[in-house]
Amino acid sequence: MSEELHVRTLQAGDFDKGFLSVLGHLTTVGDVTREMFEEQVRRRDAVGGYHTVVIEDGGRIIATASMVVELKFIHGCSKVGHIEDVVVDPGYRGKRLGLKLIEALIAAARADGCYKVILDCAEGNVSFYEKAGLVRKEVQMVRYLDR
Amino acid sequence: MSEELHVRTLQAGDFDKGFLSVLGHLTTVGDVTREMFEEQVRRRDAVGGYHTVVIEDGGRIIATASMVVELKFIHGCSKVGHIEDVVVDPGYRGKRLGLKLIEALIAAARADGCYKVILDCAEGNVSFYEKAGLVRKEVQMVRYLDR
Repeated sequence: MSEELHVRTLQAGDFDKGFLSVLGHLTTVGDVTREMFEEQVRRRDAVGGYHTVVIEDGGRIIATASMVVELKFIHGCSKVGHIEDVVVDPGYRGKRLGLKLIEALIAAARADGCYKVILDCAEGNVSFYEKAGLVRKEVQMVRYLDR
Repeated sequence: MSEELHVRTLQAGDFDKGFLSVLGHLTTVGDVTREMFEEQVRRRDAVGGYHTVVIEDGGRIIATASMVVELKFIHGCSKVGHIEDVVVDPGYRGKRLGLKLIEALIAAARADGCYKVILDCAEGNVSFYEKAGLVRKEVQMVRYLDR
Protein backbone atom coordinates (compact mmCIF):
# COMPACT_ATOMS: atom_id res chain seq x y z
CA MET A 1 0.00 0.00 0.00
CA SER A 2 1.35 3.41 -1.00
CA GLU A 3 2.18 5.93 1.73
CA GLU A 4 -0.82 8.13 1.20
CA LEU A 5 -3.91 7.32 -0.79
CA HIS A 6 -5.98 10.19 -2.17
CA VAL A 7 -9.68 10.54 -2.77
CA ARG A 8 -10.74 11.48 -6.29
CA THR A 9 -13.92 11.59 -8.36
CA LEU A 10 -15.02 8.54 -10.34
CA GLN A 11 -14.08 8.69 -14.02
CA ALA A 12 -15.47 6.83 -17.02
CA GLY A 13 -12.11 5.01 -17.34
CA ASP A 14 -12.53 3.42 -13.90
CA PHE A 15 -14.33 0.47 -15.46
CA ASP A 16 -10.86 -0.96 -16.16
CA LYS A 17 -9.61 -0.25 -12.65
CA GLY A 18 -11.94 -2.61 -10.86
CA PHE A 19 -14.58 -0.11 -9.74
CA LEU A 20 -17.33 -2.72 -10.10
CA SER A 21 -15.24 -5.37 -8.32
CA VAL A 22 -14.97 -3.25 -5.18
CA LEU A 23 -18.74 -2.65 -5.26
CA GLY A 24 -19.06 -6.45 -5.38
CA HIS A 25 -17.82 -6.54 -1.77
CA LEU A 26 -20.96 -4.60 -0.83
CA THR A 27 -23.77 -6.21 -2.81
CA THR A 28 -24.78 -7.80 -6.13
CA VAL A 29 -23.44 -5.83 -9.08
CA GLY A 30 -24.73 -8.10 -11.84
CA ASP A 31 -23.63 -8.09 -15.46
CA VAL A 32 -22.63 -4.49 -16.03
CA THR A 33 -20.83 -4.07 -19.35
CA ARG A 34 -18.41 -1.25 -20.15
CA GLU A 35 -21.14 0.36 -22.26
CA MET A 36 -23.68 0.20 -19.41
CA PHE A 37 -21.17 1.63 -16.95
CA GLU A 38 -20.11 4.50 -19.22
CA GLU A 39 -23.73 5.30 -20.08
CA GLN A 40 -24.62 5.44 -16.36
CA VAL A 41 -21.65 7.76 -15.66
CA ARG A 42 -22.86 10.01 -18.50
CA ARG A 43 -26.48 9.93 -17.35
CA ARG A 44 -25.53 10.80 -13.76
CA ASP A 45 -23.30 13.65 -14.98
CA ALA A 46 -26.13 14.97 -17.17
CA VAL A 47 -28.63 14.84 -14.29
CA GLY A 48 -26.19 16.46 -11.85
CA GLY A 49 -26.15 16.14 -8.08
CA TYR A 50 -24.25 12.82 -8.14
CA HIS A 51 -20.90 12.50 -6.40
CA THR A 52 -18.96 9.25 -6.55
CA VAL A 53 -15.54 9.26 -4.93
CA VAL A 54 -12.91 6.54 -5.16
CA ILE A 55 -9.51 5.67 -3.74
CA GLU A 56 -7.00 3.97 -6.02
CA ASP A 57 -3.88 2.03 -5.09
CA GLY A 58 -1.48 0.62 -7.65
CA GLY A 59 -3.89 1.27 -10.52
CA ARG A 60 -6.82 -0.46 -8.83
CA ILE A 61 -9.90 1.09 -7.15
CA ILE A 62 -9.94 -0.16 -3.56
CA ALA A 63 -12.69 1.97 -2.01
CA THR A 64 -15.69 4.01 -3.10
CA ALA A 65 -18.69 5.94 -1.79
CA SER A 66 -21.49 7.83 -3.54
CA MET A 67 -23.90 10.63 -2.75
CA VAL A 68 -26.97 11.91 -4.53
CA VAL A 69 -28.10 15.45 -3.70
CA GLU A 70 -31.86 15.82 -3.41
CA LEU A 71 -33.61 19.13 -4.14
CA LYS A 72 -36.22 19.79 -1.41
CA PHE A 73 -39.05 22.28 -0.90
CA ILE A 74 -38.62 22.28 2.89
CA HIS A 75 -36.03 24.32 4.76
CA GLY A 76 -36.21 27.15 2.22
CA CYS A 77 -35.94 24.90 -0.87
CA SER A 78 -32.77 23.39 0.55
CA LYS A 79 -30.89 20.20 -0.33
CA VAL A 80 -30.07 16.89 1.36
CA GLY A 81 -27.14 14.62 0.53
CA HIS A 82 -27.97 10.91 0.51
CA ILE A 83 -24.78 8.89 1.05
CA GLU A 84 -24.93 5.46 -0.60
CA ASP A 85 -22.81 2.47 -1.53
CA VAL A 86 -19.84 2.93 0.79
CA VAL A 87 -17.35 0.09 0.51
CA VAL A 88 -13.66 -0.58 1.13
CA ASP A 89 -11.86 -3.64 -0.25
CA PRO A 90 -11.50 -6.12 2.66
CA GLY A 91 -7.70 -6.04 2.31
CA TYR A 92 -7.67 -2.29 2.99
CA ARG A 93 -10.01 -2.05 5.97
CA GLY A 94 -9.00 -0.47 9.30
CA LYS A 95 -6.97 2.23 7.56
CA ARG A 96 -9.56 5.01 7.88
CA LEU A 97 -10.11 5.03 4.10
CA GLY A 98 -13.89 4.83 4.56
CA LEU A 99 -13.68 7.88 6.79
CA LYS A 100 -11.72 9.77 4.12
CA LEU A 101 -14.45 9.02 1.59
CA ILE A 102 -17.24 10.16 3.92
CA GLU A 103 -15.36 13.36 4.73
CA ALA A 104 -14.95 14.07 1.00
CA LEU A 105 -18.69 13.57 0.46
CA ILE A 106 -19.56 15.80 3.44
CA ALA A 107 -17.34 18.53 1.96
CA ALA A 108 -19.16 18.13 -1.37
CA ALA A 109 -22.53 18.30 0.42
CA ARG A 110 -21.50 21.57 2.10
CA ALA A 111 -20.28 22.98 -1.21
CA ASP A 112 -23.62 22.06 -2.81
CA GLY A 113 -25.56 23.80 -0.01
CA CYS A 114 -27.02 20.70 1.70
CA TYR A 115 -28.38 21.33 5.20
CA LYS A 116 -27.72 17.70 6.17
CA VAL A 117 -26.37 14.39 4.94
CA ILE A 118 -28.13 11.12 5.71
CA LEU A 119 -27.36 7.46 5.17
CA ASP A 120 -28.66 4.04 6.14
CA CYS A 121 -26.37 1.42 7.62
CA ALA A 122 -26.36 -1.91 9.41
CA GLU A 123 -26.37 -1.81 13.21
CA GLY A 124 -22.74 -3.01 13.17
CA ASN A 125 -21.58 0.05 11.20
CA VAL A 126 -23.15 2.70 13.45
CA SER A 127 -19.92 3.27 15.42
CA PHE A 128 -17.95 3.70 12.16
CA TYR A 129 -20.26 6.50 11.00
CA GLU A 130 -20.24 8.09 14.44
CA LYS A 131 -16.51 8.67 13.86
CA ALA A 132 -17.53 10.79 10.85
CA GLY A 133 -19.82 12.89 13.05
CA LEU A 134 -23.11 11.23 12.16
CA VAL A 135 -25.66 10.32 14.81
CA ARG A 136 -28.38 7.70 14.91
CA LYS A 137 -31.75 9.14 13.91
CA GLU A 138 -34.62 7.09 12.50
CA VAL A 139 -35.56 3.65 11.17
CA GLN A 140 -34.89 2.71 7.55
CA MET A 141 -37.65 0.75 5.85
CA VAL A 142 -37.60 -0.99 2.49
CA ARG A 143 -39.90 -2.62 -0.03
CA TYR A 144 -38.35 -4.73 -2.77
CA LEU A 145 -40.29 -4.54 -6.04
CA ASP A 146 -40.90 -7.51 -8.27
CA ARG A 147 -40.02 -6.59 -11.81
CA MET B 1 -64.45 15.94 2.90
CA SER B 2 -65.42 14.85 -0.61
CA GLU B 3 -66.42 11.23 -1.19
CA GLU B 4 -63.24 10.19 -2.90
CA LEU B 5 -59.98 12.07 -2.99
CA HIS B 6 -57.56 11.39 -5.82
CA VAL B 7 -53.80 11.42 -5.98
CA ARG B 8 -52.23 13.66 -8.60
CA THR B 9 -48.80 15.06 -9.45
CA LEU B 10 -47.67 18.37 -7.96
CA GLN B 11 -48.11 21.34 -10.30
CA ALA B 12 -46.46 24.76 -10.30
CA GLY B 13 -49.88 26.28 -9.47
CA ASP B 14 -50.03 24.39 -6.16
CA PHE B 15 -48.24 27.25 -4.42
CA ASP B 16 -51.68 28.90 -4.11
CA LYS B 17 -53.32 25.71 -2.84
CA GLY B 18 -51.40 25.46 0.41
CA PHE B 19 -48.76 22.92 -0.66
CA LEU B 20 -46.18 24.54 1.61
CA SER B 21 -48.66 24.77 4.52
CA VAL B 22 -49.19 21.02 4.53
CA LEU B 23 -45.40 20.48 4.50
CA GLY B 24 -45.32 22.75 7.55
CA HIS B 25 -47.05 19.97 9.51
CA LEU B 26 -43.91 17.86 8.88
CA THR B 27 -40.98 20.22 9.44
CA THR B 28 -39.67 23.77 8.98
CA VAL B 29 -40.49 25.10 5.53
CA GLY B 30 -38.99 28.58 5.97
CA ASP B 31 -39.59 31.58 3.74
CA VAL B 32 -40.25 30.02 0.36
CA THR B 33 -41.59 32.60 -2.10
CA ARG B 34 -43.70 31.78 -5.14
CA GLU B 35 -40.61 32.37 -7.31
CA MET B 36 -38.47 29.98 -5.22
CA PHE B 37 -41.18 27.32 -5.33
CA GLU B 38 -41.75 27.57 -9.09
CA GLU B 39 -37.99 27.57 -9.74
CA GLN B 40 -37.58 24.41 -7.62
CA VAL B 41 -40.46 22.70 -9.49
CA ARG B 42 -38.76 23.61 -12.79
CA ARG B 43 -35.31 22.49 -11.59
CA ARG B 44 -36.65 19.14 -10.38
CA ASP B 45 -38.52 18.63 -13.67
CA ALA B 46 -35.34 19.43 -15.62
CA VAL B 47 -33.26 16.99 -13.55
CA GLY B 48 -35.88 14.24 -13.80
CA GLY B 49 -36.44 11.37 -11.38
CA TYR B 50 -38.51 13.48 -8.98
CA HIS B 51 -42.08 12.47 -8.16
CA THR B 52 -44.21 14.61 -5.85
CA VAL B 53 -47.81 13.53 -5.40
CA VAL B 54 -50.55 15.47 -3.66
CA ILE B 55 -54.17 15.05 -2.60
CA GLU B 56 -56.47 18.06 -2.84
CA ASP B 57 -59.83 18.64 -1.15
CA GLY B 58 -61.97 21.68 -1.78
CA GLY B 59 -59.16 23.46 -3.64
CA ARG B 60 -56.60 22.91 -0.88
CA ILE B 61 -53.66 20.45 -0.76
CA ILE B 62 -54.18 18.25 2.30
CA ALA B 63 -51.50 15.57 1.81
CA THR B 64 -48.24 15.08 -0.07
CA ALA B 65 -45.32 12.68 -0.52
CA SER B 66 -42.19 12.82 -2.67
CA MET B 67 -39.72 10.40 -4.19
CA VAL B 68 -36.35 10.89 -5.84
CA VAL B 69 -35.12 8.09 -8.10
CA GLU B 70 -31.39 7.38 -7.72
CA LEU B 71 -29.35 5.94 -10.61
CA LYS B 72 -27.09 3.16 -9.25
CA PHE B 73 -24.20 1.11 -10.62
CA ILE B 74 -25.12 -1.93 -8.51
CA HIS B 75 -27.81 -4.46 -9.45
CA GLY B 76 -27.09 -4.04 -13.17
CA CYS B 77 -27.09 -0.22 -13.14
CA SER B 78 -30.52 -0.28 -11.52
CA LYS B 79 -32.46 2.42 -9.67
CA VAL B 80 -33.73 3.00 -6.14
CA GLY B 81 -36.68 5.18 -5.15
CA HIS B 82 -36.11 7.30 -2.02
CA ILE B 83 -39.46 8.25 -0.49
CA GLU B 84 -39.33 11.58 1.37
CA ASP B 85 -41.51 14.22 3.00
CA VAL B 86 -44.72 12.25 3.55
CA VAL B 87 -47.35 14.30 5.38
CA VAL B 88 -51.12 14.42 5.79
CA ASP B 89 -52.94 17.45 7.26
CA PRO B 90 -53.83 16.55 10.87
CA GLY B 91 -57.55 17.04 10.12
CA TYR B 92 -57.41 14.30 7.46
CA ARG B 93 -55.46 11.59 9.27
CA GLY B 94 -56.80 8.05 9.75
CA LYS B 95 -58.42 8.02 6.29
CA ARG B 96 -55.70 5.99 4.56
CA LEU B 97 -54.64 9.00 2.46
CA GLY B 98 -50.98 8.52 3.36
CA LEU B 99 -51.27 4.94 2.14
CA LYS B 100 -52.73 6.14 -1.17
CA LEU B 101 -49.74 8.45 -1.64
CA ILE B 102 -47.22 5.70 -0.87
CA GLU B 103 -48.96 3.33 -3.26
CA ALA B 104 -48.81 5.96 -6.00
CA LEU B 105 -45.08 6.43 -5.43
CA ILE B 106 -44.47 2.66 -5.42
CA ALA B 107 -46.30 2.44 -8.78
CA ALA B 108 -44.08 5.25 -10.11
CA ALA B 109 -40.97 3.47 -8.80
CA ARG B 110 -41.99 0.28 -10.62
CA ALA B 111 -42.68 2.24 -13.81
CA ASP B 112 -39.22 3.84 -13.53
CA GLY B 113 -37.54 0.43 -13.11
CA CYS B 114 -36.53 0.72 -9.44
CA TYR B 115 -35.61 -2.56 -7.76
CA LYS B 116 -36.63 -1.20 -4.34
CA VAL B 117 -38.04 1.80 -2.54
CA ILE B 118 -36.62 2.96 0.78
CA LEU B 119 -37.54 5.58 3.35
CA ASP B 120 -36.61 6.68 6.85
CA CYS B 121 -39.25 7.15 9.52
CA ALA B 122 -39.71 7.63 13.24
CA GLU B 123 -40.22 4.49 15.32
CA GLY B 124 -43.88 5.46 15.80
CA ASN B 125 -44.55 5.36 12.04
CA VAL B 126 -43.12 1.89 11.38
CA SER B 127 -46.53 0.18 11.61
CA PHE B 128 -48.01 2.70 9.16
CA TYR B 129 -45.39 1.87 6.52
CA GLU B 130 -45.76 -1.84 7.19
CA LYS B 131 -49.34 -1.46 5.90
CA ALA B 132 -47.79 -0.31 2.61
CA GLY B 133 -45.67 -3.46 2.46
CA LEU B 134 -42.41 -2.00 3.72
CA VAL B 135 -40.30 -3.78 6.29
CA ARG B 136 -37.80 -2.54 8.83
CA LYS B 137 -34.23 -2.79 7.54
CA GLU B 138 -31.34 -0.66 8.77
CA VAL B 139 -30.48 2.36 10.91
CA GLN B 140 -30.73 5.89 9.53
CA MET B 141 -27.92 8.22 10.53
CA VAL B 142 -27.64 11.96 10.02
CA ARG B 143 -25.16 14.79 10.21
CA TYR B 144 -26.47 18.35 10.16
CA LEU B 145 -24.12 20.76 8.41
CA ASP B 146 -23.46 24.27 9.63
CA ARG B 147 -23.86 26.70 6.78
